Amino acid sequence: MTAEIITIGDEILIGQIVDTNSAHIAQELNKIGISVHQITSIEDEHSHILTTLEEASKRADIVIITGGLGPTRDDVTKHVLCEYFDDVLVRNDEVLQHVEDLFRKIINTPISDLNREQAMVPSKAIVLHNKFGTAPGLWMKKDKTVFIAMPGVPFEMKTLMELEVIPKIVKEFKRPFIYHKTIRTYGLGESAIAQRLETWENNLPKAIKLAYLPDYGTVRLRLSGKGEDRELLKISIEGEFKKVYPLLEDILSNGLGEAEDISVSISKLLISKKQFLCFAESCTGGEIAARFTKIPGVSSCFKGGLVTYATHSKEDILKIPVGVIEKNSVVSAEVAEKMAENAKKIFKSDYALSTTGNAGPSKGDSDAEVGTVFIGLATPDRIFSKRFEFEGGREQIVEKSVNEAFKIILKELI
Amino acid sequence: MTAEIITIGDEILIGQIVDTNSAHIAQELNKIGISVHQITSIEDEHSHILTTLEEASKRADIVIITGGLGPTRDDVTKHVLCEYFDDVLVRNDEVLQHVEDLFRKIINTPISDLNREQAMVPSKAIVLHNKFGTAPGLWMKKDKTVFIAMPGVPFEMKTLMELEVIPKIVKEFKRPFIYHKTIRTYGLGESAIAQRLETWENNLPKAIKLAYLPDYGTVRLRLSGKGEDRELLKISIEGEFKKVYPLLEDILSNGLGEAEDISVSISKLLISKKQFLCFAESCTGGEIAARFTKIPGVSSCFKGGLVTYATHSKEDILKIPVGVIEKNSVVSAEVAEKMAENAKKIFKSDYALSTTGNAGPSKGDSDAEVGTVFIGLATPDRIFSKRFEFEGGREQIVEKSVNEAFKIILKELI
Repeated sequence: MTAEIITIGDEILIGQIVDTNSAHIAQELNKIGISVHQITSIEDEHSHILTTLEEASKRADIVIITGGLGPTRDDVTKHVLCEYFDDVLVRNDEVLQHVEDLFRKIINTPISDLNREQAMVPSKAIVLHNKFGTAPGLWMKKDKTVFIAMPGVPFEMKTLMELEVIPKIVKEFKRPFIYHKTIRTYGLGESAIAQRLETWENNLPKAIKLAYLPDYGTVRLRLSGKGEDRELLKISIEGEFKKVYPLLEDILSNGLGEAEDISVSISKLLISKKQFLCFAESCTGGEIAARFTKIPGVSSCFKGGLVTYATHSKEDILKIPVGVIEKNSVVSAEVAEKMAENAKKIFKSDYALSTTGNAGPSKGDSDAEVGTVFIGLATPDRIFSKRFEFEGGREQIVEKSVNEAFKIILKELI
Repeated sequence: MTAEIITIGDEILIGQIVDTNSAHIAQELNKIGISVHQITSIEDEHSHILTTLEEASKRADIVIITGGLGPTRDDVTKHVLCEYFDDVLVRNDEVLQHVEDLFRKIINTPISDLNREQAMVPSKAIVLHNKFGTAPGLWMKKDKTVFIAMPGVPFEMKTLMELEVIPKIVKEFKRPFIYHKTIRTYGLGESAIAQRLETWENNLPKAIKLAYLPDYGTVRLRLSGKGEDRELLKISIEGEFKKVYPLLEDILSNGLGEAEDISVSISKLLISKKQFLCFAESCTGGEIAARFTKIPGVSSCFKGGLVTYATHSKEDILKIPVGVIEKNSVVSAEVAEKMAENAKKIFKSDYALSTTGNAGPSKGDSDAEVGTVFIGLATPDRIFSKRFEFEGGREQIVEKSVNEAFKIILKELI
């Protein structure tokens, strides 16, 4: 059982949007035992879509297509499907009713003929109900390959996957199981880890695949396997990890290695200690808080955060004495530490992380060079800060600052 | 001149990461007049990479490959390139020196033989210096197609693109110009706009392509063209937009249509009025601030933000009276409005946006259903709030809240 994903849309090819749909679809397929072997992104262009469908059908049992189902002229997917399946568009009354209902109840603007055309579907297609949008999903079969087309709007696609596509695939195909397990290591490079693991890696069963995923000073190791017997697969992969734990003991840190994201490790440690964290952010502009609150249930260890972007906000709200800023500059170890110290008090928290720096592109309220960032941490016992000189553009400097900040608090909690 | 991008890595195919590299590469190529016609993501698997290289070479002048250049065994790109080019790996002394320098100066761990192998490159390759990493970029030519391989680590790839790949392409290829221009509309659906524009769309020159990009209640219209004469191209596309402005007058709103992101429109309006904004976020957890501060120079209109996640933070820091929370529940219009009112005072700002709601997956400090969100706004003249019931998971609820919040303030500023 193999699948391919085809995402259609000029906006992907000119880099105007990042294709996040593919990752979501791949994850959902993996959960039900289907591997994705290729993801192809192409323009809204008739002949290129047609060729891509033909090529994919030679390799895959399931081809999932997103995009190009909208009501405007640049959307051509439905017409290409008609040509590929030698089919014609016919009106589907249920879809028409749904489109009319959506316009009356939710969209609240008059319906047009163009909207009504959303109810025209290939006659050979099984229609999949799109609860939140006007373009239905389409399920079509040619020889042994199933083609599933969905709109590219992410939340419509996600709902269609959950309510229609996955249940129908589960019903119609016998599938093996896929099992992935990832552990995270800190503080050692990819190749140093590979050297430690050489003998173990050489002896891994053929059906189990190892991958190294380096990411800002942490390296994740993933074992993947596929098989008919889920329990056996799980036992086999867990068994391999058990062999490897002793070799990585010093870089795994009490069982937290499994966490997919460093913020999850931090939240687990805090919750187990019944302690709370808060943030005082300047150059990271809320990104630390935003990333930390992505974790469901984080309210059990997170008090809140302050984004003190303007210098006077640091003075007024975080109560950083004007003298400290004037004497040391707003981008300084002293200010970072004072921010952490005061945030901890204000939020009645156990820990407080702070950032102050210049993310560029030009100099801000201080003379600090672009890329200079101080990260401060207040713990129950002490207050300290670290200075960083990050390379790269604004986005990269913020991303690196967030990662380093998380690494600093994690080290303190372990 | 056409290009294709091939991204290699199992982590993309299982959906563990989103492929952001392709969008960046596509953007940079577009800037120098090169269109990307296909993006293909495949596993670290020898024969599949080989086939993909062969197919891409038939269609493209430039094939850009990322991933699979690391030092561990799951990285096979270099070996596939050797097979494809009938080549062997040879040691490159400059790369070796650079790898040794990196380990001594930055990575600060002992260098291993595996690291030294990064200096082994195909003998037919031109080596591109990777300032921040150990895997060099590779530039290889077969018949009329150039293949460029880069590591998949985003900041290494971005630096290689900027300092090596783009300058070398510019030097070696004669390229046409690509011109895109996007305008943004508010308040009317894709198909209603298409009906208004029908005659104009029918009369567009063949060389100019129109795309509709719907996105949470706003629709962007993009015109794209390609040609030898940049000025002519620009004049032609600007001219087409001039014809269309009168048809969209009511939904374009004083010249802000050009902004790529709604947050940019908001910052421009604030800066032109010399006014400031601040945020008090609960369920959005800092995401509004994080997205707003992505804009360079935003300190001219942004004071700062508060993330009051825990209920007691709303009381202690935002000074929401306990009675207001007890009487109305923490997820209520009254609390949203009080948050905005008090944040505006605390930050000495002209406007304050607030959010309180339940992003799920389970109920939090209040009885509010998952998806219920109140967004409050304090302006120089008044305070109000709007209630929303969002569908979807945690991430979608936060994303929709951020978008609605931006729409509320934008409407007020226009």
